[in-house]
Amino acid sequence: MKKIAFVGVGRMGANMARHLKLDCGYEITAVYDVNRSSAVSLAEELGTVAPETLAEVTAAADLIFTVVTNDDAMRAIFLGEGNLLENSSGKTFVNCATLSPGVHREVYQAGKAVGAEVLEAAMASSISQAREGTLYLMIGGEESVFTSNQKVLEDLSVNLRYCGEIGKAAEVKSLVNMVMNINTAALAEGLGLADALGLDLAMVREVFSQTGANSRVLETDGDDMVDRDHECWFSSEHAAKDSGIAADLAASVGLNLPVNEATRAQYENMVARGLGDLDKSGIAELTFKGRGS
Amino acid sequence: MKKIAFVGVGRMGANMARHLKLDCGYEITAVYDVNRSSAVSLAEELGTVAPETLAEVTAAADLIFTVVTNDDAMRAIFLGEGNLLENSSGKTFVNCATLSPGVHREVYQAGKAVGAEVLEAAMASSISQAREGTLYLMIGGEESVFTSNQKVLEDLSVNLRYCGEIGKAAEVKSLVNMVMNINTAALAEGLGLADALGLDLAMVREVFSQTGANSRVLETDGDDMVDRDHECWFSSEHAAKDSGIAADLAASVGLNLPVNEATRAQYENMVARGLGDLDKSGIAELTFKGRGS
Repeated sequence: MKKIAFVGVGRMGANMARHLKLDCGYEITAVYDVNRSSAVSLAEELGTVAPETLAEVTAAADLIFTVVTNDDAMRAIFLGEGNLLENSSGKTFVNCATLSPGVHREVYQAGKAVGAEVLEAAMASSISQAREGTLYLMIGGEESVFTSNQKVLEDLSVNLRYCGEIGKAAEVKSLVNMVMNINTAALAEGLGLADALGLDLAMVREVFSQTGANSRVLETDGDDMVDRDHECWFSSEHAAKDSGIAADLAASVGLNLPVNEATRAQYENMVARGLGDLDKSGIAELTFKGRGS
Repeated sequence: MKKIAFVGVGRMGANMARHLKLDCGYEITAVYDVNRSSAVSLAEELGTVAPETLAEVTAAADLIFTVVTNDDAMRAIFLGEGNLLENSSGKTFVNCATLSPGVHREVYQAGKAVGAEVLEAAMASSISQAREGTLYLMIGGEESVFTSNQKVLEDLSVNLRYCGEIGKAAEVKSLVNMVMNINTAALAEGLGLADALGLDLAMVREVFSQTGANSRVLETDGDDMVDRDHECWFSSEHAAKDSGIAADLAASVGLNLPVNEATRAQYENMVARGLGDLDKSGIAELTFKGRGS
């Protein structure tokens, strides 16, 4: 059985590691985080080590999962000084963060140059699915590398989909999040206006659910927007980032997507107001009268 | 059994009349349309008459359904010269068009002044549901008037909901359409970008359907956007109008809803380009490379 390490043990990465170790019996040989106390705490919980350097993480494992915050963090761990690719020939990296497709391609090429395999595994799921091994995983990279790691990816997921060459999974993921974010903004505007008009919000949500206004985010975020329960599952800061990735992709192919731009601006507005840590449902703080401003 | 007339026999009104007459056995005593040939044709089909004046329509019936295009058309038939309210004491009007809440209130008050009853019946459904009597109807007006006409409204609908005083159903309906239109614009942007990136659109639609990007409009409009099948069920011109009603409501309560504004601008852009007669799915003509512009 392969020795597995995790780099980036926030809510998602830590729960993936817990699932593989506690539920599936995999050997977790190292965990690492820029927030060292998180790594030390998880290492104690899982009976493993939290090395101080990325080189030690690579040395300790055959298969390294990374779940970092953004493109800059990804470049730091793979392309910065003392990075994961040192002495990484024969190792496999599976990168799970939602990043720009271009960064996945950069890291893939850097890995190839030193004999390491690199996959992307875009996740369209949240924290509880990570813990339960029921993630929705979209894989980009070489198909043979995907196949040789399919077992552990299946153990993490309930739905595993090969999307194509490196970067393609990130493209699909950015589209999912772009559409999800717009639908979320739409719902926040609809419920905010309903509230301002004095309508019964339970009635309005029920009508939405039975008509052309229905959406997955109505199920996941509708109550939270009304109740102002913005405990973070998917942060507004991440929403701003992902809508921005989609906007950059659109610009790269010469497309103008004004509804995504308006949605991105709303999520960036949240970050600017210090609301970026709220769940994406927190966008309702901008659209209900008497909240936010 | 009440004698029933219809004013405005476009696709929706004509099919409601067909259902009541052909499937339920109601007596349709007059039909009227500004496009007189439509009224004459339907009158022949249903064995009724197509009077030349609105006064004759009112005289011929106890219960008059109206399904007109917009606020101006509504004011013309109820407040203009030779309107439906002449000698209308004791008659009941059920107004089914998607209009601004304010116009419903104006017509209600004008009716009360001459002893006529006025309900609004906002429809969150399309043509086939009109023909089959499976509309989603939201009623505004006096509850006693609703109750005394409940049987025929049930015969037209599969879901009948009393929303409150006159205007409240139009408010809920405008919210439904605002959210639906934004979700439609979101889908068109997502699929247009996916296409420009060279992704497999069947795969992308399936991923959307299984993730936070899922929505009712993905089911109803996803294939049509890809196939450019924009046969009109709900026109882009109507979408522009309804997003505008929601924008006016938002302005009236001092709310800024930027994602609705961006969506409204897209649908108004379609109208300006002569694409207003396309189904709302036609918004994809603006977001797929090489279409539209």
